[in-house]
Amino acid sequence: MNVFASVTSGIGHSAVREFPLPDIGADAGLLRVEAAGVCGSDVNSYRRNATPRIMGHENVGVIEQIGELAAQRWGVTIGDRVALEEYLPCGHCRYCRTSEFRLCFETDPRMSGGVRYGSTGIDVAPSLWGGYSQYLYLHPRSVLHSVPASVPAELLTLALPLGNGFEWATVLGGAAPGKLVGVFGPGQQGLACMLAAKAAGADLVVGFGLDRDSRRLEVARALGADHTVDVSKADPVEVVRDLTGGQLLDVVIDTAAGSRATLVPAVDMLRHTGTLVVPAGNSDVDGFPIGKVRQKFLTVRGARGHGYSSVTWAINLIAAQRLPLELMTTHRVGLDRVDFAIRSTGGEFGPDAIHAAVEPWR
Amino acid sequence: MNVFASVTSGIGHSAVREFPLPDIGADAGLLRVEAAGVCGSDVNSYRRNATPRIMGHENVGVIEQIGELAAQRWGVTIGDRVALEEYLPCGHCRYCRTSEFRLCFETDPRMSGGVRYGSTGIDVAPSLWGGYSQYLYLHPRSVLHSVPASVPAELLTLALPLGNGFEWATVLGGAAPGKLVGVFGPGQQGLACMLAAKAAGADLVVGFGLDRDSRRLEVARALGADHTVDVSKADPVEVVRDLTGGQLLDVVIDTAAGSRATLVPAVDMLRHTGTLVVPAGNSDVDGFPIGKVRQKFLTVRGARGHGYSSVTWAINLIAAQRLPLELMTTHRVGLDRVDFAIRSTGGEFGPDAIHAAVEPWR
Amino acid sequence: MNVFASVTSGIGHSAVREFPLPDIGADAGLLRVEAAGVCGSDVNSYRRNATPRIMGHENVGVIEQIGELAAQRWGVTIGDRVALEEYLPCGHCRYCRTSEFRLCFETDPRMSGGVRYGSTGIDVAPSLWGGYSQYLYLHPRSVLHSVPASVPAELLTLALPLGNGFEWATVLGGAAPGKLVGVFGPGQQGLACMLAAKAAGADLVVGFGLDRDSRRLEVARALGADHTVDVSKADPVEVVRDLTGGQLLDVVIDTAAGSRATLVPAVDMLRHTGTLVVPAGNSDVDGFPIGKVRQKFLTVRGARGHGYSSVTWAINLIAAQRLPLELMTTHRVGLDRVDFAIRSTGGEFGPDAIHAAVEPWR
Amino acid sequence: MNVFASVTSGIGHSAVREFPLPDIGADAGLLRVEAAGVCGSDVNSYRRNATPRIMGHENVGVIEQIGELAAQRWGVTIGDRVALEEYLPCGHCRYCRTSEFRLCFETDPRMSGGVRYGSTGIDVAPSLWGGYSQYLYLHPRSVLHSVPASVPAELLTLALPLGNGFEWATVLGGAAPGKLVGVFGPGQQGLACMLAAKAAGADLVVGFGLDRDSRRLEVARALGADHTVDVSKADPVEVVRDLTGGQLLDVVIDTAAGSRATLVPAVDMLRHTGTLVVPAGNSDVDGFPIGKVRQKFLTVRGARGHGYSSVTWAINLIAAQRLPLELMTTHRVGLDRVDFAIRSTGGEFGPDAIHAAVEPWR
Repeated sequence: MNVFASVTSGIGHSAVREFPLPDIGADAGLLRVEAAGVCGSDVNSYRRNATPRIMGHENVGVIEQIGELAAQRWGVTIGDRVALEEYLPCGHCRYCRTSEFRLCFETDPRMSGGVRYGSTGIDVAPSLWGGYSQYLYLHPRSVLHSVPASVPAELLTLALPLGNGFEWATVLGGAAPGKLVGVFGPGQQGLACMLAAKAAGADLVVGFGLDRDSRRLEVARALGADHTVDVSKADPVEVVRDLTGGQLLDVVIDTAAGSRATLVPAVDMLRHTGTLVVPAGNSDVDGFPIGKVRQKFLTVRGARGHGYSSVTWAINLIAAQRLPLELMTTHRVGLDRVDFAIRSTGGEFGPDAIHAAVEPWR
Repeated sequence: MNVFASVTSGIGHSAVREFPLPDIGADAGLLRVEAAGVCGSDVNSYRRNATPRIMGHENVGVIEQIGELAAQRWGVTIGDRVALEEYLPCGHCRYCRTSEFRLCFETDPRMSGGVRYGSTGIDVAPSLWGGYSQYLYLHPRSVLHSVPASVPAELLTLALPLGNGFEWATVLGGAAPGKLVGVFGPGQQGLACMLAAKAAGADLVVGFGLDRDSRRLEVARALGADHTVDVSKADPVEVVRDLTGGQLLDVVIDTAAGSRATLVPAVDMLRHTGTLVVPAGNSDVDGFPIGKVRQKFLTVRGARGHGYSSVTWAINLIAAQRLPLELMTTHRVGLDRVDFAIRSTGGEFGPDAIHAAVEPWR
Repeated sequence: MNVFASVTSGIGHSAVREFPLPDIGADAGLLRVEAAGVCGSDVNSYRRNATPRIMGHENVGVIEQIGELAAQRWGVTIGDRVALEEYLPCGHCRYCRTSEFRLCFETDPRMSGGVRYGSTGIDVAPSLWGGYSQYLYLHPRSVLHSVPASVPAELLTLALPLGNGFEWATVLGGAAPGKLVGVFGPGQQGLACMLAAKAAGADLVVGFGLDRDSRRLEVARALGADHTVDVSKADPVEVVRDLTGGQLLDVVIDTAAGSRATLVPAVDMLRHTGTLVVPAGNSDVDGFPIGKVRQKFLTVRGARGHGYSSVTWAINLIAAQRLPLELMTTHRVGLDRVDFAIRSTGGEFGPDAIHAAVEPWR
Repeated sequence: MNVFASVTSGIGHSAVREFPLPDIGADAGLLRVEAAGVCGSDVNSYRRNATPRIMGHENVGVIEQIGELAAQRWGVTIGDRVALEEYLPCGHCRYCRTSEFRLCFETDPRMSGGVRYGSTGIDVAPSLWGGYSQYLYLHPRSVLHSVPASVPAELLTLALPLGNGFEWATVLGGAAPGKLVGVFGPGQQGLACMLAAKAAGADLVVGFGLDRDSRRLEVARALGADHTVDVSKADPVEVVRDLTGGQLLDVVIDTAAGSRATLVPAVDMLRHTGTLVVPAGNSDVDGFPIGKVRQKFLTVRGARGHGYSSVTWAINLIAAQRLPLELMTTHRVGLDRVDFAIRSTGGEFGPDAIHAAVEPWR
């Protein structure tokens, strides 16, 4: 029996190929993929990384095969449903030993020995490292979360982006009852921050977007944002001043740009002792207002990915089915339309895309 | 009876003047000043602020007069020895109610109603708002700390700078056993950070200075720094890499500049999840490495002043007399030499100055 | 003009008396009381404390008179609406300086100089220390919170009990998204813990009561409890085991007894690393399971009252008017029925009482 | 080639036996044991547990054999020197994923599948689960710490007890600059708490012992305790009151008993908001002062073992060789004297024993 998978090879090109089913060792397993989400980072990767690989790291499915050791370690058996994290941490370094396994060097495919779902190439046996495939190899270092059988798979692919939102807004930002929170960017990560802040009891959540974001800001309000602002029409700092009676915000998360265009108003809309979380941006920034950071006693926190507990929280939130999370799933496609799903997520076919799910058996 | 005080009037000019002893209300008092330290911020204030005022906000002395209400509130009586904080917080705003009174708007003389020791002008009755004076007015909102009778007054004027060092290195930076700490700048605040980090059990403390800082780096080593680096002779990031076997640092405090020249190497010498504390700098910075802050998961914390507990800790440290803190007191002068003390602290007469004490009865 | 107030004198006896309107100094004020809540602690005080006093410490009203200094300090003026904390903290001790003013010795009327709303006797001038009175003396050390004009006064008297709930469940217990929480006792404090835990995003809130508590457990569910348990009918530990699939709880708050009857099951229903918050109980306990506390790595936290931020949070929650808080107000009476209100709160006239408001102008 | 090991079989009986050298798989290794410490818990285990086993869980040695996978995972090779934790955590449960692997159920030999160094029986292949043996099996789930080649092995066996001390005094208790700390019990764990508190900058460390503890209290002072108290001669609460000028303590750790005899004075000597850490005691306690815990707003924390970072800290402290840790090593024996070493540690041959090291090649 063969496995069909969408292989990304070259820049911005995907095609379905066949792979043999791998032999599974005692400490490994095989996942029958139900759905794999398209992350915002997939868009960049698709445009820049030419390594032939099966993409897809927001994976949900059912255990199809499992080795004896793995079954014991993971506490799961054939037929169990799980969601995976993208990381395959070594388990032994100081990051792994202290709950920061997202920082384990072995999770980085650019390092020798590093593997990661959705990034590792098909030249590394057994090739099936991504979720845009009927089956996925469950590596011995997999991080699994049990998920309930009753929840639609495409919603469960939100476990990682919602986990990010919880990590950034709540764990790093401190969103909680009594706190006033702003979020730049109404993409999947920004929306996740907004709903996480609200679910954690924040008194006020304000989402900032652009002219083209009207639909996504509408979704923001449906998911819990108290106010949304089109920054092309109103000065966001002034809006915050009005909304808060001059108190300003306790927490701002910049999922939009991490550039001067967002960081400067973010700093201006924070009250003394506030926190700015920066999960976006890769470059140096000119005119960074470090003087205001000092004078206002601010904390700036760089952010990447999620901790284990944040994903657990996200899965529980999805399972509770209290929020209209289906509004976030704007695209559901089969293996043959991975290119469309990724490019849609990148906004090539319109501004309303939020989160896409690839369903390999569709 | 009259009071002699050094009045700063105009830019960079001080002269001794006489004031009448004020009447003290039931909720106030009068301090016979033993010594008043010269803070690094005094140098900037002296160069830029023309308001006629008695400077001096690191004040130590003995209660000379006290109103009945004040004695009850503060738990002190005539003859008791105290150190003062510079702040005169309102006691009622949300910052005062939640241990952040350094941020109380009423501590800022630029705000209506705001008063602060060493900054408020002589036109505000009863004029005696600074420690470069034989007597200081104890305002009802004073923040007092009892100090032991046995410790030299000039050492006790270090209570605020050492409190800052503890606040920045330990409370904000997290210096503690197991942590590796770097400090830019071997002035009074930088030295305070180094000794606070070491006193809090940090495994490694590295101080960074310039060519001209050889004496001050020597003092750093005497106060607990494990290593000091002249950054004009060696790349500080490389030195850190060598000293730590490639691990890099957990905490860096930039007391030197808060500019690109220090912030860029500070970010480069921090390990993943490290913390950069920035108590220096007032301007925007070009080329701020926000991308590295994100990728390395760093925390950047703006810092100003001290909390109450940090000053208590500093006083206990001074009282314990275990460290050669006298090395920090490079100048002791009378009221007539306030100009010299401030300009020395600013480095006008040589690079070795650290901390000066004005002793009004000298 | 005279003031009518209900004076408690002797054990379990109250009568309306007249007092002269006091002269108000520059640093004080006078509150026209709209409503004063009856706290659970009032019941004990009423039964045991014979000091002639005006009770009532959950006070809401409008500024009737205010001294010039007080107006400046507090940032309020005649006609402004405020809620008061019961504490009159000194503002100068280490507890006051570090956000723990509830522990200030000066808030304890049994200490020399200590005063507190609802406890201080009428022999201490100007007598008007409690809210069961048309007017209340605003002492210079008052802790005020601004409250919106649009919210019913009897709901605003819940500011302190809801502040307690937030303090105990969230600040001390750590109730937050992902956490599973249990609360013993469905009285005003227990209900406050339940709704605070839920408002802070706890995944599960379980309330435990007795046979007689059916109505109060119904209110618990209306305010956010996911499940309620009548412990006379089911073993609470077994119920928790079932509800959580054997995971047990992260946080338990015992507002009921602080005795073996509640502490033992509380420890048994906590998972490893869980937290037990104990705001009830004054006596030693036999058979305290310290061995289990150790083996399960639990944290036990004694709790009293609230911090400033918790009261702010409670007022914001009341003002948002999203929850049916009116279900908690089971009694509203005038000054002549203070005895009835207190004894009702103590359960003398039926088990359904939750929170009573005394309205002196009713 | 055969391995000599001391096998404990039956209650309180040990004898040297021979075992074959095991075959080592790709994910495992073999440690040539240099030294294995005797933990206080070994005494209880020796007296009560009849399972035939090789005891010894404070293990230090050199990698003798290592599988390819294990070398890659652990980052070590033949000839490297390591210290081991006792735990063999599963790596996949929520405790392992969140830095609390000491609580992983798989570390408990009483659970199916659970293994632990020093506890697992010789009937579980390959038998070599304890350090009182020339060689120890390095299980794939081992937790290793690199240790420097230059430090005596018997001092490195203190890594776990000192790690406990750091965990209990500092991580759980909050010992830090400004804090006043008391420790009941001058055994290896109590001494470790005292030196950890002092190394973390505590302002005051007081050790409490009995009449028979004079030598061990002397060692306490040499390792950093500021004061020691023989509680048979002085009321410990009164001594604390005197030493602190009535302030009382911030932190108390009870390594002695966890019974009423220590818990009651511990609670009495804590100031408001203090913390009591309880790593001792397995039984219920009568007369537990829960009322005082509440009134004084105390935190009580059950404690077991150490986190990964605490052991790293302990190794760094041992490697720094600043403290006279050799005072803690009161016994060094060969394999044939394991019985003597354990019984000495239990105090059977005199009160001065602190920590023993078994050196299998002696």
